[in-house]
Amino acid sequence: MAVEQFQATAHLQSGTLVKVRSRGFEFTLDEPAELGGTDTAMNPVEALLGALGACQAIVASAYAKKFKVQLDDFWVELEGDLDPDGFMNKADVRCGYSAIRYTYHIKSESAQADIDAFIAFIGTKCPVGDSLMQPVALQLAGVVHEK
Amino acid sequence: MAVEQFQATAHLQSGTLVKVRSRGFEFTLDEPAELGGTDTAMNPVEALLGALGACQAIVASAYAKKFKVQLDDFWVELEGDLDPDGFMNKADVRCGYSAIRYTYHIKSESAQADIDAFIAFIGTKCPVGDSLMQPVALQLAGVVHEK
Repeated sequence: MAVEQFQATAHLQSGTLVKVRSRGFEFTLDEPAELGGTDTAMNPVEALLGALGACQAIVASAYAKKFKVQLDDFWVELEGDLDPDGFMNKADVRCGYSAIRYTYHIKSESAQADIDAFIAFIGTKCPVGDSLMQPVALQLAGVVHEK
Repeated sequence: MAVEQFQATAHLQSGTLVKVRSRGFEFTLDEPAELGGTDTAMNPVEALLGALGACQAIVASAYAKKFKVQLDDFWVELEGDLDPDGFMNKADVRCGYSAIRYTYHIKSESAQADIDAFIAFIGTKCPVGDSLMQPVALQLAGVVHEK
């Protein structure tokens, strides 16, 4: 393969409710009341943590066999530090996450050395993790204005 | 406010299906067949684009009034460049997005100058966008191993 393009759309509904779509699949995001929303779904920064954990879980699923690790269960617990004053325009701080910590929960009877090598590997092959650790070039490609 | 903690979990189900949860809300992610999945949901890198667009849409919703912009409709179209050879461990390329382009679709009869200032502002206050543009410190906080 070579560089591929992935796509999604995000459509604002009423209030802060947003419908996210990609390839016919969809989910909704919202904000809790204290961030100005109607609290009908998790918010984008929580979904970002979830996408990171899901990406790590899929890397784990894809590489378990190669590392001779039998995964009886695998889940990721994530926590990120973010100052809402950035988004709220109340302080000159970064708007996004300054740090994200994750804990792997693994149920396996495989050899400890194999599990250790496997765990060390997962973080190095995660597309969402890499997109957060190294800068991504974001560009406003255009504005389509309808009256 | 000050720095706050946001949380989520990602639990691997069968195959590459992952259940993402935060504050009692949930959605699922999967991979298409060509990336080893069962194609029952969008994948984490598509969800990442969606979370970015949703975050921009929520910033738009939150600041429209301040910029005297009446939003009759607002949606974001996103596309990112990613080489799956990174995740597949087939080439020494970065695993994540190298670039993400987004197009705003806005329906509004407000003054063009107000819309222009509003559009320029949105990108600067988006927590997910900032998390992608500037490096985030990712840390494996622990491994909970059950046999």
